[in-house]
Amino acid sequence: MVKQVRLGLIGFGNVGQGLAQILAESAADYAAARGLELRIVAVSDALKGSVYAPEGLDAARLLEKISADGNFHGLPEEKPAWDAVAMIRESNADVIVEMSYTDLKTGQPAITHFKEALSHRKHVVSTNKGPVALAYSELQQLAAANGVQMGVEGTVMSGTPALRLGMEILAPAHIHRVMGIFNGTTNYILTQMESGMSYAAALAEAQKLGYAEADPTGDVEGFDAAGKVVILARLLMNTALRLDEVDRTGITALTQSDVAAARSAGERWKLIGSLEKTETGLNASVQPQRLPLAHPLAGVSGATNAIHFSTDYLGEVTLIGPGAGRLPTGYAVIEDILAIYRE
Amino acid sequence: MVKQVRLGLIGFGNVGQGLAQILAESAADYAAARGLELRIVAVSDALKGSVYAPEGLDAARLLEKISADGNFHGLPEEKPAWDAVAMIRESNADVIVEMSYTDLKTGQPAITHFKEALSHRKHVVSTNKGPVALAYSELQQLAAANGVQMGVEGTVMSGTPALRLGMEILAPAHIHRVMGIFNGTTNYILTQMESGMSYAAALAEAQKLGYAEADPTGDVEGFDAAGKVVILARLLMNTALRLDEVDRTGITALTQSDVAAARSAGERWKLIGSLEKTETGLNASVQPQRLPLAHPLAGVSGATNAIHFSTDYLGEVTLIGPGAGRLPTGYAVIEDILAIYRE
Repeated sequence: MVKQVRLGLIGFGNVGQGLAQILAESAADYAAARGLELRIVAVSDALKGSVYAPEGLDAARLLEKISADGNFHGLPEEKPAWDAVAMIRESNADVIVEMSYTDLKTGQPAITHFKEALSHRKHVVSTNKGPVALAYSELQQLAAANGVQMGVEGTVMSGTPALRLGMEILAPAHIHRVMGIFNGTTNYILTQMESGMSYAAALAEAQKLGYAEADPTGDVEGFDAAGKVVILARLLMNTALRLDEVDRTGITALTQSDVAAARSAGERWKLIGSLEKTETGLNASVQPQRLPLAHPLAGVSGATNAIHFSTDYLGEVTLIGPGAGRLPTGYAVIEDILAIYRE
Repeated sequence: MVKQVRLGLIGFGNVGQGLAQILAESAADYAAARGLELRIVAVSDALKGSVYAPEGLDAARLLEKISADGNFHGLPEEKPAWDAVAMIRESNADVIVEMSYTDLKTGQPAITHFKEALSHRKHVVSTNKGPVALAYSELQQLAAANGVQMGVEGTVMSGTPALRLGMEILAPAHIHRVMGIFNGTTNYILTQMESGMSYAAALAEAQKLGYAEADPTGDVEGFDAAGKVVILARLLMNTALRLDEVDRTGITALTQSDVAAARSAGERWKLIGSLEKTETGLNASVQPQRLPLAHPLAGVSGATNAIHFSTDYLGEVTLIGPGAGRLPTGYAVIEDILAIYRE
């Protein structure tokens, strides 16, 4: 018996296109291996337009259309009057996949999309950090009240299953500390500085490669990593933190002489997001730290991310993998959908 | 609603005692968090004797008795006439936890224990490599025919969830290669050789610390790692291999000059178990390999284990954690039980 799962996508940028590529290539595999037939029935993108076909859209054809024209205009399935909220309300999607742009100040418009979807009894899978960092408890209550689930694996380390590993597998081992490299841009810059580049030159190269934005503040001042620390606190430590409760320092003050001093001491600078249970509560920080080379996070180079769990029963466990990217983040959505329907 | 899960343990050595310690400390937590009340109702150990109480045994009291006397003799719950098979047949256990000694040649007596338990419709959780390496397909069919499950997380990397990560989370990303450090003893020896020790001295130290047996052949010639490669081939690559189909070389021929030559080339020797899909089938090997220091497995030191997955959609993902130990291996049993009853 194969169960159909109808997906409504909000956003068809890199992540949405990565998801569409995976489904174009592997939806038949997943139907055979997991008994779930994943079909995109609707897409709504603020710039590219909206499309809808209740029986399913051809993922490969959507990718070709975007590749050719940059938008959905003129497709027979086009819904020119639909925005994301209309898509949520009027499509037959079982799962809404929220991939719009992250806003860590307001969480909008993604929080509105979550609420619309959950209150219409649709599961929500999201790669958007805003709603999880800012409104998780409220959204979780809404999901529970409507008998649906949220999957947010892609908000931290893309498809590298940091959240699922922590919540499902390691939680019963009693996690007392989590630390990690949660921002690929800054880790790339630090890796280049290790090779002798200045901070300014490394940042310029990261911008050229598309790792860093024109305004790099969110990455280099640690706001992005702090957002992930807030998400980890909520999901792994059951603690609601505000972003400004994370003790945050970026990498902009690090100099080549700092890097050289660490190297001659057998250490390496990393921008470490950290959560540690103490007798009085939870210490949360994002700070450059000098790690000994033997530390499992010290060898993580380039844009790769990593998370290091300290547990009572399993000691130290480290997971290393991609932190961004079209296919890895698209795959996070697959992981969440398969987990929702496994249960 | 809390569901009771009654456990029958075969073997009460290090792993069984680690499991009992976790349950003594945390069974109430698991009941609250997961709705599962895990109770040890029976233990059968070939040397220490057998005990049984249908309503549950006090795990802390079992540990005290073993610590004081080294056996169960004289406890009111003692069953002097029971062996493991009698315990499986006559106890009310829902799950049989197989923790007897691994025999990679015959798989016995563990294969008999698996068959008895599965045919009596009891789930089996095991840390014993023998049955999984030698008879998995037959046992899986027996489990399916009887509507019960097998959990074998502890057979590779103790409680570090290498199998669960691969089978549940990464399989849909299409794993095309797996490589890893699957034997802590040899990794400890290689790490000591990196610090200048001879192979013989490093082996002697590993034996003194209890990492290596008096006869170290199983570890240093790569048989233990090859057994794990066979298990990974079965569970992650859906391929049945015999142990002698793994191309196997141990570490006994490595000299200090080999280690020094690697170091001056910026590389490090590791005993790598590997599985790679090719156009003609699956290449399986256990061999010393020189890895560049930037490889995620190169920095794994001491008795720690690690697994490195190469996937189509998620790129390279590495998991590092303990490969043995009383609590980590006991925790593998907890992971499997929670997963069986989640489903």
